[in-house]
Amino acid sequence: MSYENIRVVMIGTTHPGNIGAAARAMKNMHLSDLVLVAPQTKFPCGKARARASGAIDVLENTRVVDDLASAIDDCTLVAGASARLRAIPWPVKDARDCAEEMVVASNESKVALVFGRERSGLTNEELERCNRLVHIPANEAYSSLNIAAAVQVLSYEVHMAMRDKEKLKLHVANDYPMSTAEEMEGLYQHFEQALQTIGFLNPENPRQLMRRLRKLFNRAQLDKMEMNILRGILAAAESPKKPREKND
Amino acid sequence: MSYENIRVVMIGTTHPGNIGAAARAMKNMHLSDLVLVAPQTKFPCGKARARASGAIDVLENTRVVDDLASAIDDCTLVAGASARLRAIPWPVKDARDCAEEMVVASNESKVALVFGRERSGLTNEELERCNRLVHIPANEAYSSLNIAAAVQVLSYEVHMAMRDKEKLKLHVANDYPMSTAEEMEGLYQHFEQALQTIGFLNPENPRQLMRRLRKLFNRAQLDKMEMNILRGILAAAESPKKPREKND
Repeated sequence: MSYENIRVVMIGTTHPGNIGAAARAMKNMHLSDLVLVAPQTKFPCGKARARASGAIDVLENTRVVDDLASAIDDCTLVAGASARLRAIPWPVKDARDCAEEMVVASNESKVALVFGRERSGLTNEELERCNRLVHIPANEAYSSLNIAAAVQVLSYEVHMAMRDKEKLKLHVANDYPMSTAEEMEGLYQHFEQALQTIGFLNPENPRQLMRRLRKLFNRAQLDKMEMNILRGILAAAESPKKPREKND
Repeated sequence: MSYENIRVVMIGTTHPGNIGAAARAMKNMHLSDLVLVAPQTKFPCGKARARASGAIDVLENTRVVDDLASAIDDCTLVAGASARLRAIPWPVKDARDCAEEMVVASNESKVALVFGRERSGLTNEELERCNRLVHIPANEAYSSLNIAAAVQVLSYEVHMAMRDKEKLKLHVANDYPMSTAEEMEGLYQHFEQALQTIGFLNPENPRQLMRRLRKLFNRAQLDKMEMNILRGILAAAESPKKPREKND
């Protein structure tokens, strides 16, 4: 369990005040790793500093990157915050359960909570990079929290789960470390290529199939041994060896 | 249990933006009864409206009074939010326990969550009007939440307590029914056979590999669509079609 391993990622934020408020909310709850993906306004900026209050140190260590992949490549568990119901069904946890899961996973590796744009949230492509959606239970008639308020609630739940960490130590350990987001992307690329090679995937319309495979394996969260097995199966499917050698 | 019976009281607020943000935070969590005690700036005001976003109705129904007594006189349970340790020992509950207590008491009567000034919190006289102090667990080195963020966390805990009382649960949205144990066994048999065909599995020692695949897919819990996809991939790997037809 490590606060340092729990990252907050904000995508395409419009109002710099929200970035400052999020930094304050994080520091209030012991979090310090903030990454901005393509913020809409120049960063650093005075408005963010003003709202950060005593959390200037968090802002000063904030990284700015161009895309979500760069923000999460080293993470083994990525949860995307989502207020609205999605057209694409994706595993959903509520804030409390998600925070518990994050805290347990943070024991071994980096994890990330991802927050989308103020108005439009996450794109479907960003969603597909996530293992989970995390939903803050709210008034269904008015469910969209201010983004810094959402960061506050989730950071608070992370801190509450850390407090209960003795209980969480009962969690069954994995025998291999978990795969990173980057390794997962490598797997999906390999799937797409191998399924075309064996004639299972139509390259003209790959979206639904690949989305379903992403949903399945993101949900399962692969360890490195499972990753090696699946890569090995795909390689073998692309160029089968033994049985055909026998037939030669 | 009644959301209408749970009031938020803000004393001597300096920044009207915080009033608007608090209104939004409340409405997100089904709360609507906001009372301001002697705010430092004129109310209503545009800055509050801007930050309230879709919670203008909460602001329009907000009462402004001169002192705390006028804000809480009809309440049976009053909890004062406090970040700092007090010189006066007073019963303290954390946010979660306090919210539960509020929700139970709201069944019969009005209750109030009281928030002090941004800089100085509650006076001792105000504290003495409270049945409890409520403390949001936080980083002891930086424990002072923005006041609207504190309203958000406590409103969220109220909503969570309401939800628990009503035994509501958040379900993972699946678009297809889940696979049966029998179907899962069929999948593993198909895996074993296909992986031999493509030369990936050594039939003399299949145990470890098959065990790992079982662990992965049992953990993921496949729906019927995912089952069909995996069976399709295995069938295609056993006898690849399109690319080889092209080569014929």
